[in-house]
Amino acid sequence: MIDSLKKRRSIRKYADKPVGKELLNRLLAASERTQTMGNMQLYSVVVTRDMEMKRRLAPAHFNQPMVTQAPVVLTICADFNRTVRWAEQRDAVPGYDNFLSFLNAATDALLFTQTFCNLAEAEGLGICYLGTTLYMPSQIIDILKLPRLVMPVATLTVGWPDEQPPQTDRLPLESITHEEVYQDYSPNDIDRYYKEKEELPENRHFVEINHKETLAQVFTDIRYTKKDNEAMSEGILQALRRQGFLDWPKR
Amino acid sequence: MIDSLKKRRSIRKYADKPVGKELLNRLLAASERTQTMGNMQLYSVVVTRDMEMKRRLAPAHFNQPMVTQAPVVLTICADFNRTVRWAEQRDAVPGYDNFLSFLNAATDALLFTQTFCNLAEAEGLGICYLGTTLYMPSQIIDILKLPRLVMPVATLTVGWPDEQPPQTDRLPLESITHEEVYQDYSPNDIDRYYKEKEELPENRHFVEINHKETLAQVFTDIRYTKKDNEAMSEGILQALRRQGFLDWPKR
Repeated sequence: MIDSLKKRRSIRKYADKPVGKELLNRLLAASERTQTMGNMQLYSVVVTRDMEMKRRLAPAHFNQPMVTQAPVVLTICADFNRTVRWAEQRDAVPGYDNFLSFLNAATDALLFTQTFCNLAEAEGLGICYLGTTLYMPSQIIDILKLPRLVMPVATLTVGWPDEQPPQTDRLPLESITHEEVYQDYSPNDIDRYYKEKEELPENRHFVEINHKETLAQVFTDIRYTKKDNEAMSEGILQALRRQGFLDWPKR
Repeated sequence: MIDSLKKRRSIRKYADKPVGKELLNRLLAASERTQTMGNMQLYSVVVTRDMEMKRRLAPAHFNQPMVTQAPVVLTICADFNRTVRWAEQRDAVPGYDNFLSFLNAATDALLFTQTFCNLAEAEGLGICYLGTTLYMPSQIIDILKLPRLVMPVATLTVGWPDEQPPQTDRLPLESITHEEVYQDYSPNDIDRYYKEKEELPENRHFVEINHKETLAQVFTDIRYTKKDNEAMSEGILQALRRQGFLDWPKR
C-alpha cells in the first residue's frame, strides 16, 4: 500500500469502463474496519451512478467535469440519524443535536473516507476528492434528500484512470512536524520550506498568467479568497442549523 | 494493506520497545502523499516522546493509560498558521480566520491521520485513536503551545502491540450505503441492522452491569450523554474562537 501511495496522484479523467458493484462493495466493506467513535459508525455513503443524478450534483461542485464523467460518485456524510433512530426505538433519549456531535460524526466519516481512498488506489482505481462538498452543502442536502442529523462532508469521484498527471510537490517533513511542543515558524523557516514549491516551473507560470507578484497571492486573491470563505462559512452554519446540529450551543 | 485492515483492532497495550524515529518519519512522510486542499497541507503533527509531556497530556484524555504507556503520542492539528505566515511574508492578504477554513484544515488533518493509521498498521504497529482530543481542546492547546489558527483534532497513541483484543463488530454494509438518494430507516430496518450488535454476549453483559434495559441506553445515558455533549460543544467553540477560527461569521 505504501507503494501505491508513494505514486499516487488525484485522477480527474476516467476510462469508459464501469466500476463493478462487487468491487465497490468489497472496498466499502473493508473500509468499515476503520476505527469509529464508540463503534457507532457515524457515517453514511450515498452512491451515485445515475447520469441524471450526477448532472444534478455537478453545480454544487462548480461543474467540475469529473462529477459527470466518473462512473461512480460517492458522497460521504456525517450521520447521527441512524444512531438516533435506533436509540429512540430502544427507549433511549439521545442528545446528539449539538456541535460536538457533528464534529464526532464528521471525524468518523472522514477517517472512513480516507481508508476507502487508500484501498481503492491500491486496487488501481483513480480518485478525486472534491473539497467543494463543504461549499454549498444545502444543495447537496436537497438533491440527495438527506434528513436531519445527516450532513455531507466529502465527495469522491471514482473510476479507472485515463490520465497520468505529474505528482504534485509536498512540503519537507520537518516543516509539518514539531517535537514535544509547537515551534512557530521564523521568516527563515518559511523561506526555506516554501522555496521548492515557489520555484517549480508550473507555479511560476501560475503566478505569471494570473498577473500576480507571488504564488501566495494566487492563493489569497484568486483561489481561496477571504470573501468566498466568509460567505461559505455562513452557508455551512446555516446547513448545520438546518440539519439539527446546532441546537446547542443556543445562540 | 486490505489484509492488515481486515484484521485490525485498536491497540491499547504496548510492548516495552521503542518506535524508531526513522520508521516514524518514513510513515509520516509517506502520509504526506494524501490529497490536500489546493496542496496547502493544512496540518501539523506534534510528536510526544517525553514522559513528562505525556503525563501533562493525559488528563486531557481522561487519564486513559495509553497516553503515558505508548512510546509515541501524535497530536494532529488543523493548521492554517504556517500558510498564513507564508502569505504574509509574500505580500498576500490571507482570509482564513473563519469557520470554513477550520473545517478545510480539519479535513486535511483527518485524511492525513487516517493514511498514517493505515500505513502504521500495515507495518505491524498498534494504534489507538483518542476521540477525547475534541473534548478539552483548550488544555491541549496550552500544553503543546499551539498558536492562533492551530487546533488539535486527533490524537494517536502508537507502539508495538502487546495484546490482541477481539475484533469489534460492524454494521452490515447495506445499512451504511444508500443508492442515489438517502433512504431513511424504517423500524424494521433498525431492528434488522442492530440485531447482531445487540445480541453479542459482551454487549448484553454491558447492559446488565450498567443496570440498563437496552444497549442504546448505555450509549445515551452513560457513554455519550446529552449533558456532556452540550458542555463540550461550548468548550470547542470557545477553543475555536480563541484560536481565531471564528472571527467569521461574527456573532
